[in-house]
Amino acid sequence: MTQITEKLVWIAADWGLSHLRLWMMAENGDVLHRLSADCDLDGLAPDQFEPTLVNLVTEFLPKDRIIPVILCGMAGAKQGWAEVPYTATPSAPPSAPSATKVKTKDKRFAVYILPGMKQNAPADLMQGEETQIAGFLAANPKFDGVLCLCGPHTKWAHISAGEVVSFRTFMTGELLALLSNQSLLRHTTASSTWDTDTFATAVDDAMSNPAILASKLFSIHAEASLLDQSNAIGQAKLSGLLIGAELAAARPYWLGQEIVIIGENDLSAAYKTALEPLGMPVQTAPAESMTLAGLSAAYIALESETQ
Amino acid sequence: MTQITEKLVWIAADWGLSHLRLWMMAENGDVLHRLSADCDLDGLAPDQFEPTLVNLVTEFLPKDRIIPVILCGMAGAKQGWAEVPYTATPSAPPSAPSATKVKTKDKRFAVYILPGMKQNAPADLMQGEETQIAGFLAANPKFDGVLCLCGPHTKWAHISAGEVVSFRTFMTGELLALLSNQSLLRHTTASSTWDTDTFATAVDDAMSNPAILASKLFSIHAEASLLDQSNAIGQAKLSGLLIGAELAAARPYWLGQEIVIIGENDLSAAYKTALEPLGMPVQTAPAESMTLAGLSAAYIALESETQ
Repeated sequence: MTQITEKLVWIAADWGLSHLRLWMMAENGDVLHRLSADCDLDGLAPDQFEPTLVNLVTEFLPKDRIIPVILCGMAGAKQGWAEVPYTATPSAPPSAPSATKVKTKDKRFAVYILPGMKQNAPADLMQGEETQIAGFLAANPKFDGVLCLCGPHTKWAHISAGEVVSFRTFMTGELLALLSNQSLLRHTTASSTWDTDTFATAVDDAMSNPAILASKLFSIHAEASLLDQSNAIGQAKLSGLLIGAELAAARPYWLGQEIVIIGENDLSAAYKTALEPLGMPVQTAPAESMTLAGLSAAYIALESETQ
Repeated sequence: MTQITEKLVWIAADWGLSHLRLWMMAENGDVLHRLSADCDLDGLAPDQFEPTLVNLVTEFLPKDRIIPVILCGMAGAKQGWAEVPYTATPSAPPSAPSATKVKTKDKRFAVYILPGMKQNAPADLMQGEETQIAGFLAANPKFDGVLCLCGPHTKWAHISAGEVVSFRTFMTGELLALLSNQSLLRHTTASSTWDTDTFATAVDDAMSNPAILASKLFSIHAEASLLDQSNAIGQAKLSGLLIGAELAAARPYWLGQEIVIIGENDLSAAYKTALEPLGMPVQTAPAESMTLAGLSAAYIALESETQ
């Protein structure tokens, strides 16, 4: 580990509700080492954050200098490590100047938590995605359009002149997971594959008449039973109905806009498949890279502040 | 227990996905004894149904005569005790003539499973609720209107001339439970009370624009956090949005109809509160009594068949 310690100049950290990702960073921006740990924030008291972090990074920390740790995500929430005041929209995504420096017992590092963003009307919150936006904007400073930040709680963000103008959150990903894994529909939607045509039809149905979402969920079960349909069909219907209902409600965001989907799993691919037939230009970017780019931008800003 | 055994002439049984209810019945229709057991149908093999039942009723069974057991619910499904073919709509709710007699090792009882109902287009299923409908119709043979059978999977059934003309199932109750207990919203909706005005507004919002359901779920979390709202408000918003979206989709059922809500818990009260401002006459009936009345009607039909 000596090599990492020697080259380590800062640590990037994304501390979400259920995971902690850490990158040991070199001066030139290279990732020396990447760590990922499951971590249920729900069960963590404020004074348990530091020991959790120390436990993971202690072997890499040098003794002769203080390593800055730049952290984004739910660790800055009310029930997190320290409550960091949200930055209100419209605003550029927060960077080092609005970060909160946390007092730590261990003096080998200095921890800075980046704020999330809030929107007062309609009320909305993000904590972690703003750093993905900052990362995207670092590489695309002139971008004017819409970012779709996929996940359990997908965010649609309208970006203009380097600022998050407004955003809206949809619980589609969490709903999809709950219904696929824990509802009656788990028997008829558990599938590693899905039927593309069925998905497209379901998206279309829900977009043109969002009310049917309520009545078509049980239909997935009934159709599987009466028509002996496969789970690949069931999964496609469920995903399609939920994403279609979201697209109907998010229309003011995507209509006529350039769209970039930031995500990396099947959900991101599903959004792309759903959006493409609508005739909008759709690009994708990997979420983890955007997070790291956002944290790196904050580190650079911190360095220029302190010099 | 001798007194019960002496008077016992038949057993009524409602075997649902998660519960088994049994009533020891006297000749005059009196309930001699009521039993209720939790029972996860998901984990039960077909040959485990009989021992489960025997275990609960053995002490009551006489040795000198065969006791008919009339059973409704998921025990008649594909993964149940025995697959009983569905009765297709339009039809009177099934009774004794369409029941399936199950072979049992124990000769002290004769088990009859009532069929559920199916609808081919749009595909839909019920298994258990049809017996509540039969019970309601036994007391209200001339009823022409709509029954709203509340539960995890609420059924709206159009009834005319003693028949189930059509029906539609909504997973609202299960969605409400999943979101209240297992999603991000559990922190802001867990509440034993709720705010009536907030509920009414949420129902109204979702009814007039069902698309907002997708965007307003996360708002419950964001508003609770930014505006410091109570869980009683959160619970009212969530229930109101989900029930409002259902009412929008179920409009062809309830519009201009006489409505009877069959249920017994808070959910039934919530539907009543949501429906009353719409100007329709709404009555309620307790679900368990309707089930027992339906099973009793089937027993009477069975008796007249065999005599």
